[in-house]
This record gives sequence, C-alpha cells and structure tokens, in this order.
Amino acid sequence: MHFSNETVQKAYLATEENPFDMDAWNVLLRELQTRKIEDVRPLFEKLAKIFPTTGRFWKMYIEQEMKARLYDKVEKLFTRCLIKVLNIDLWRLYLQYIRESKAALPTYKEKMAQSYDFALDKIGMDIQSFSIWNDYANFLKSVEASGSYAENQRISAVRKVYQKAVMTPMISVETLWKDYITFEQGINPIIAEKMSMERSRDYMNARRVAKEHEAITRGLNRSFPSVPPTGSPEEVRQVALWKKYIAWEKNNPLRTEDLTLLARRVMFAYDQCLLCLSHHPDVWYEAALFLENISKLMNEKGDAVSAKKFSDQAADVYENAITGVLGKNMLLYFTYADFEETRVKYEKVHTIYQRLLDIEDIDPTLVYIQYMKFARRAEGIKLKSYFILFQFPCTVCVAVVSTSLRIKNARAIFKKAREDPRSKYPIYVAASLMEYYCSKDHNIAFRIFELGLKKFPAEQDYIMCYVDYLSHLNEDNNTRVLFERVLTSGNLSPEKSVDIWNKFLEFESNIGDLSSIVKTEKRRSNVLNQLKEFEGKETAQIVDRYRFLDLFPCTTAELRSIGYTEVLSFSSSFKAQLPQFNVP
Amino acid sequence: MHFSNETVQKAYLATEENPFDMDAWNVLLRELQTRKIEDVRPLFEKLAKIFPTTGRFWKMYIEQEMKARLYDKVEKLFTRCLIKVLNIDLWRLYLQYIRESKAALPTYKEKMAQSYDFALDKIGMDIQSFSIWNDYANFLKSVEASGSYAENQRISAVRKVYQKAVMTPMISVETLWKDYITFEQGINPIIAEKMSMERSRDYMNARRVAKEHEAITRGLNRSFPSVPPTGSPEEVRQVALWKKYIAWEKNNPLRTEDLTLLARRVMFAYDQCLLCLSHHPDVWYEAALFLENISKLMNEKGDAVSAKKFSDQAADVYENAITGVLGKNMLLYFTYADFEETRVKYEKVHTIYQRLLDIEDIDPTLVYIQYMKFARRAEGIKLKSYFILFQFPCTVCVAVVSTSLRIKNARAIFKKAREDPRSKYPIYVAASLMEYYCSKDHNIAFRIFELGLKKFPAEQDYIMCYVDYLSHLNEDNNTRVLFERVLTSGNLSPEKSVDIWNKFLEFESNIGDLSSIVKTEKRRSNVLNQLKEFEGKETAQIVDRYRFLDLFPCTTAELRSIGYTEVLSFSSSFKAQLPQFNVP
Repeated sequence: MHFSNETVQKAYLATEENPFDMDAWNVLLRELQTRKIEDVRPLFEKLAKIFPTTGRFWKMYIEQEMKARLYDKVEKLFTRCLIKVLNIDLWRLYLQYIRESKAALPTYKEKMAQSYDFALDKIGMDIQSFSIWNDYANFLKSVEASGSYAENQRISAVRKVYQKAVMTPMISVETLWKDYITFEQGINPIIAEKMSMERSRDYMNARRVAKEHEAITRGLNRSFPSVPPTGSPEEVRQVALWKKYIAWEKNNPLRTEDLTLLARRVMFAYDQCLLCLSHHPDVWYEAALFLENISKLMNEKGDAVSAKKFSDQAADVYENAITGVLGKNMLLYFTYADFEETRVKYEKVHTIYQRLLDIEDIDPTLVYIQYMKFARRAEGIKLKSYFILFQFPCTVCVAVVSTSLRIKNARAIFKKAREDPRSKYPIYVAASLMEYYCSKDHNIAFRIFELGLKKFPAEQDYIMCYVDYLSHLNEDNNTRVLFERVLTSGNLSPEKSVDIWNKFLEFESNIGDLSSIVKTEKRRSNVLNQLKEFEGKETAQIVDRYRFLDLFPCTTAELRSIGYTEVLSFSSSFKAQLPQFNVP
Repeated sequence: MHFSNETVQKAYLATEENPFDMDAWNVLLRELQTRKIEDVRPLFEKLAKIFPTTGRFWKMYIEQEMKARLYDKVEKLFTRCLIKVLNIDLWRLYLQYIRESKAALPTYKEKMAQSYDFALDKIGMDIQSFSIWNDYANFLKSVEASGSYAENQRISAVRKVYQKAVMTPMISVETLWKDYITFEQGINPIIAEKMSMERSRDYMNARRVAKEHEAITRGLNRSFPSVPPTGSPEEVRQVALWKKYIAWEKNNPLRTEDLTLLARRVMFAYDQCLLCLSHHPDVWYEAALFLENISKLMNEKGDAVSAKKFSDQAADVYENAITGVLGKNMLLYFTYADFEETRVKYEKVHTIYQRLLDIEDIDPTLVYIQYMKFARRAEGIKLKSYFILFQFPCTVCVAVVSTSLRIKNARAIFKKAREDPRSKYPIYVAASLMEYYCSKDHNIAFRIFELGLKKFPAEQDYIMCYVDYLSHLNEDNNTRVLFERVLTSGNLSPEKSVDIWNKFLEFESNIGDLSSIVKTEKRRSNVLNQLKEFEGKETAQIVDRYRFLDLFPCTTAELRSIGYTEVLSFSSSFKAQLPQFNVP
C-alpha cells in the first residue's frame, strides 16, 4: 500500500513495523474511513487479524462495507465476529443493519424479533444494554396486531421483555420500569398494581446492582485495544480495574441463589475483560479455573449435568485461548493439558502437547519436559487399572510394573525430544533427574548426563547441573574427574568456565586440604585473569573461599569496594535463577 | 565538650553522631587550632583514634602541643605515630622539631644527623622527599670541620647523602644533581668529572622514573582521610589511582635487578596507600600476598634468609591489619590464618581464630565454620606425621585414622560453636555437610540437621538447607515427612513458609502424581492467600509448577503482567544468594 499523504504513509509504515503501534493505527484509521472499501479492505483485514477482539475496529470495518451497501460482505463479517466479540456497539450496529437491510422483506418482523432475542441473549446483561431492551419493547409495541388473540400475543411478548429487562442491572433501568408500569396500566390498572408489587423487589435489586456496577467500573476503558502486555501505568490500572470488577461479580452482588446465573454473569465479565486483555494469559487461566470450580460445586450439589456443562465450558475457554492471540503461550497449553489430565482425557492431553510441538518457531524444551512428566505420572494409571481389571494378585507388584511402564512412556518422549533439533540442554537434565528421582536408577541418570555432555560440551549451565547432581551423590572421585574433564576439554571459553571453576573451588574447599584449595584457586585465578571483569581483583576472587550460604567475610560496603559485586553479577548461575525483568 | 559558636557546636555533635563526617571535622578542626591545647586535647585524642593513619591530623595535634612548648607531649606523640605514619609532612615536622628543640644541646649535631638518617631510611623514597635530602646535605656542608681528617669525614658524609639522593626518583632530583656536581667540583674537578660519569646513568634513570611517577599519580590525593568505603565517585577514583600506582611500582620502573629494592619500593607504595585506604581490606590482603610471592621468589633463588624475612613481613602486614581499623574484618583474619596454615604454624592459626572469636559483638558463625574447616584439613597432618614417625606399617590405615581424628577436632569446634549463644544456623548446615562430604557419615549428618532443627525451628533458610540435603539423597519418604513436619509444626509464619511450600511443590512435581501436585498446590495456595503479595495471583502461583531451570512458560512481559516478579522477589531464597547491594 502507498499513501500520498506523508503522515498517513508514515503511520502505515509504523504499523508494518510494530503492529501494536496504536498512535499509528489511529492516524491510519482516520484515513481509511474516508476511502472506498475496495481500496482499503486488505488493511481492514489486517486490522481484524491483529485485533480480533476489538469491537471498535470490527465496527469500523463493517460500517465501511455498509456504506458501500455490500450486504453480502457485511453478513460474512458479522458471522466472523459477532459471537466472539460481545461488544455492545457492535451488536447495536448489527441490529441497525437488520433493521435497514431487511425492512423490505415480508418476514421482516419475525426476523427483527429473532435478532433482538439473539442479541439480548448474548449481550442483554451488559450494563449499557438499555437501548436494545428499550428498542425491542417499542418495536414489539409498534407491531400491528389484528384481533384479540394477536393483541394478547403482543401484550405478553412486550410484558416478557419488560419483565426480564427490569430485573437486569443496567443503566436507565428506572426508565424501563416506569415504561413497564405505564404499559401495564394502559392495559389493566389492577394487574399493573399486582405486577408492580410482584416485580418491584427484583427491580430495586437490579437498580442497586447497576449503581454498584457503575461505581466499581468507573475508569474502566472498555474500548482499550488489546495489545501484548507493556507494563504501562494505564495498562496496569486497567488490569486492576478489570480484576476488581470480576471479583465483585464473583461476590454475587445480585445475591442470587441461582449458581448458573451467577456463573453467567461472572463469565460475561470475563468475556468483556478478554476483549481488552486477550493477550493476558492470567485472565484466560482464571476464567477457566472459575468454571472448573463451578463445575466442582455443581458436582457437590449432585447436579452432574450442569457439572459436565461447566467443565466442558472450561475446556472451551482453554481452546479459545490457544486458538487466539496467545496461540504460543505455553502456560495455557500446560494448564489446559493438566485440566484434561484431571478429567482423565489422556488422548486429548497428547493432542494438546502435540499441537504445541507442531508450532515450528518455538523452543520445545519445556514442552517436552512437561510432556515427559505427564507420561511419567499419568500414563501408567491406565495400565494400572488394566492390571487391576485382570486381578493381578499383588498390588505392590502392579505398582512397580506400572511405574516402570510409565517411565517407558516418558522415555519415548525423551527420545522424541532428543531427535528434535530445537531441543535445548534442560531436556537432558530433566530426563536424568526423572530417572534418578522416580526410577531411582543411578546408572541411567548418569548415562543421560553423559549423553547430554556429548551434545552440549560447551554449555556451562548444563555442566553445572551435571556437577551439581554428581557432587550431591558424594562421589568425590567421579566429581573431580568430571571437573577436570570439562575444564581441560578446551570446549569452554574462560567466560563460560567461571561458574564451573567457582563450583570446583567450593567442592575442594569442602573436602580438599589447603594446598589443593590453593592450587584450585590458582588455576581458577589464571582463567579469571584472562577476563577484564576480574583483572586485578585478587581479593574479590578470594571471598568465595570463605563465603557460606549468606554469610560473607566482609561488610557490604567492603565487598562493593573490592569489586565483589561485579564478580557476582558476572556469574551466570545467578542470572539464570531470575528472569531478566525490569522490576517496575 | 561544648562550644559557644553554634556552627562549631553543630559540627562537634555531628562528629559524635558519625565519626567519619569529614565536613564536620573540618569545621571543628579550624576551631581547635585556635584553642589552647589543654582544653581540646581529648578531641585531638579522639581524632587520632578515629584517623590513626592520617598524617595531616597528627601534624595538627603535634603542632598545637609544640605551640605550647610541651615537648614531653610532643615526643610521646611522635613515638606513637612516626613509624606507622610515613607521611612526608609529618616527618618534616619531626625534623623541624628536632632542629628547634635540640639546638641548645651539646650533642645537637649528632642528634640532628641521626634524625636525618632515620627519616631518610623511612621516607627517603618519597617522591616529595627533596627538601629532606637537600636540608641534610646543606646541614652536613654547614658543619664546621677543623683539621683535614674532619674535613674529609665531612666531605664523604655529604657525598654519601648526595650519591644516594641522586639515584632516588623524586621531584627536583635535578637540583640535587646540579648541587652535587658543584659540590664535587668545589673539591676536585677531576674527581667531579669521574663521579659525574659514574653516576649519571643512575641519576638519569631516577629522573625518568620520577617523571613517570608524577604522571602516574596525577590526581592522587595523599591527604585523603581514611574512612570506611563509601563508594563515592571520588573514592572510587582514588582507589583506582592507588592501584594504578602500585601496579606501576610492581612493574619495576627502575629496572633494578635488586629484588629487595623492588620489594621495598612496592611496599612503600602500599604503606602510602594504606594511610589513605586503611579501611579497604583488599589493600592489606594484596600487600601481604605481594610479600608472600616475593618470599616464594627468594626461596626459588635459594635465598632462604630473605625468604623468611619477607614471609615474616607478610605476617606483620596481617598483624597490623587486624590490630588496626579493620580489627573486625573476617576476611583478613581468615587469610591470615590460611597464611599461617601454609607455614604450618598451627598454634598461631588457633590464636588467630580465637582472637576473632573473643571479640564480643561479632557474629561468630562464619568464624566457627572456617575454624572447623581448618581443623578438618590441617589438624590431622600433625597426627599423620606422628603416625609416620612411629612407622605405622600401612599408610592407608594411617590416612583413615588421621581423617577420623581430624574430624574429631572439627567436631570439638562444632561443640564450642553450639555452646556459643551468638552462633546462627549455618553452623549446623556446615557441620552436617562436613560429616556427609568428609566422613561420609550419613547418620551423623542427619542427626546434626535434626539437632539444628530443634534449635532453629522457625528459621526457613535452615529448613531449606535441610530439605535440600534430604531431597538429594533421594529418600522420598523421609523428605515428605520432613516437609509435613515443618509445615504443620506451627513454627513458621505464612511469610516464612513460602519458600518451603515452593520446594515442596517442586518435589511433588518431580515425583508425585497430578492429584498430589494439585493438592500440594492447593495447600500452598491457602498459605499464600494469607499474604497480601500473592492475593488474587492464582496464575503467578501456578507458573512455578511449570518452570524448569531458566525456562518459563510465559514471555517476560507476560510474567510481569501477571505479577510473577513480585512473587519471585518475595522469595527469600533468591535474596539469600545475593548480598543486598545497590550496584553502582
């Protein structure tokens, strides 16, 4: 695309560079709205792809198509977004579209009523839904009815809408109440009185909740475009407001005893939140978790059907999460897999891990590790029940057999991981430790570490894990041999060997005599002195001989003065333990 | 003390508050110099105690005493500071004092010459020592000599001073050279010519080194008062300049082959540096290390006498270090002890550790740990030689016996440590791991951990060490029992149990099935939810189920958005690994 206006062109290029540059998009969108839809459709498509949950952008796109009266296109767009994007303005546009485009049809009235019902089912809970309820009531009132049967039909349709509306917390619910009472009085004052009496409690409850809702969501920007977390102050504020709103809904402000209604309202809040925070994995996870808990509550109440329904709904949330913008977020795959594991849907679990592994541009290491763990702990259970089914006599024996079978499954996954060229060294560590901790097989654990060392001879973090494993086994000779082997292998640059030298020194200072400590220190020093960071820092180097846990032989100010901090911060083992954030 | 001047009084109070408040001291010192010494002597004493190495302050103090002609006091003060404080201005004052106070004595000339010799021996190497050399030469020239024998004596005395002076790198060495040649020519032009030829190479060498010295020490503030490290930019700059200067001296700028001269010059640089940086342990350590290395070089050259001399000098440096302002610096005690250990002076080593332990207001834990390690590795050697002396047949047997005896010595120290009410938990960790790694005695190691748990039931870091030890032994049941025991003991507040719960979860996720993982997670969650930091952070809590080494199931931005950083930074195990500095 090319725009003759320089500002617009710049904005266009900026969005190509960073698809989440909102300032650029705003400039570009102002321009797009003035263009013919044919010319700019690809850009709207791009917009819809990048912001699939942002109602405002869908609305703009559809409005452009409507302007051009391309109703075919419009309907296809609504099909794509309406159900997923419960944005009140988008839904109003939909109703407006039906009104405009279908007015000439003979089935217009039915079509319109259907659309209203559909809309209110999906979005009637929205605090801003007054105009839809009101329009629907007025639409029904305006329908011509000939004959008393038809007239009664009309009255009961209007009544039904009003009665549902006045017990729904929304802004201007008071107007609906007044209109409803007026409507009833127009028909029959006695019935009106009775209805008013019957319904006023629910209405007042709804009015109260609407007020609370308004207060609790003050400052919430529902058209905040959904972008990956940036940590900006406004984003942090919005996240906090959403969490507050959801927590309030969970607290059951309607004081209803209908668990399903409560759950619907909470999920409506989550859905709204996810339109703005679709890039935030915690919202997805917590929504699914909420449904899981509701399902458990239903089970406790003996309502297995509802329990199943909510449980399936939780699975849907996970499914939506990983098919949406967070399609590469491992946390959501892992929690999804674990969720299905608790439902004993092991085939599903396999599919989930496999789908993640099929994504080409990810680092699959952690995936294989979790997959292995799953196999280790779960896959045997089936076999165990199988054994029990066939009434093996000795349960201990069964447990042993199934453990070894589970390990076998995990080993098959480890084999796949080894063959995957994307896999990093932690897979060897995890596999080895699994053998050590679970099958208690020393020998296999050792062989796996050796295998990994062949593949990652220059990976100091891997060597550190190996050394750590070996030194805890208290096999001094093997440990010393490993140190000598890796440190004299020539595979490690001085930078990469620092941690291993430190570990070697720690090892010697635990078991060696002073001369071997000093000798190791000297060898370490020869390596360190090749690094600018350690030059002339003899004292900083010797601190490590004496530190133990968090005890240091100097004050903090002294350590800093001798340059010990720089020495520490150089060491990658410390870096590895903390992800590198800028804590706000 | 009380000062009527408000500024002075404020400054006085400030120095009481913080004895290293230099701005306050400067105000106070201006006032003190105007007072009678009788009134302010206690303050000068305090100054001398706080800044025992700062020549400028000693000089002020002595000048006040001299003003009052209290020569007794003056001499006592010189006795206290002169040898330790090689400050050129202080030494000039000393010579001035001798000149003034001894002029009337019949032995004045001898006394004066002695004083000059004494001064030049100590401080004649100083780059600023010109005036002393020059004064001395002139003083000798002015001595009346009657008779040719006395005249020859005088000439050879003057010549000796000049000849030494002109080969010493100092500012204005050119003047001395000119004066010397003039002096020789006044006696005998032929000899003058010969002397000039003979000496000019050394003189030119000295002149070159003086120029280099001036360049290398540009910016060095030799009257920088010695205060504990503050990390201020000026301090950092001064430290760097001193190190540069010392490194330059070590590089042998005089190109001498006389190792003793080289060592004297380097040690002069260290001594000068220590006047300003006496609070910096690295300077002390590196000075001692330098002497140790010279001693080794001497040994290699077969000069055992010099080797012994420098080795003893190294011990003196350590001794001075720990009797000075760094009397509580453990690093210096430890390096001192290790140094004496390499000299096989075990009695001395015991004394050093004991002296440190005798200081009441220290945390002795790390001291006991090092002391134990010393006993473990060294104390047996004596016994071993004893066995060998009596010609035990089997060396293997000897080694075994001596190992167990060494451990016994270490155990005795552990017993002392346990009885010391100041000892902290790491002593139990160190003792237990020593048993595990050295005597390979599982059972004793386990009993020590149990003993420590009784004493520190609420110390989460201790429990973490215990858990770590046990879980590496791969004894699932014992480990699980320990987790349950400490977590249900009621001894740990929720804050303190976070790390242990995390560890428990890690343990379960390694070996447990999903239901036990989820169960542990739930129990952990119940505890975490009592802490404000974790409130409403379900997702942040679950990240730990999936992380492995440095692999996380989310991007950094996502982790931050779900509040995982705060969760991490709360965990004390991460805090413990890094001393809490503000990295500059």
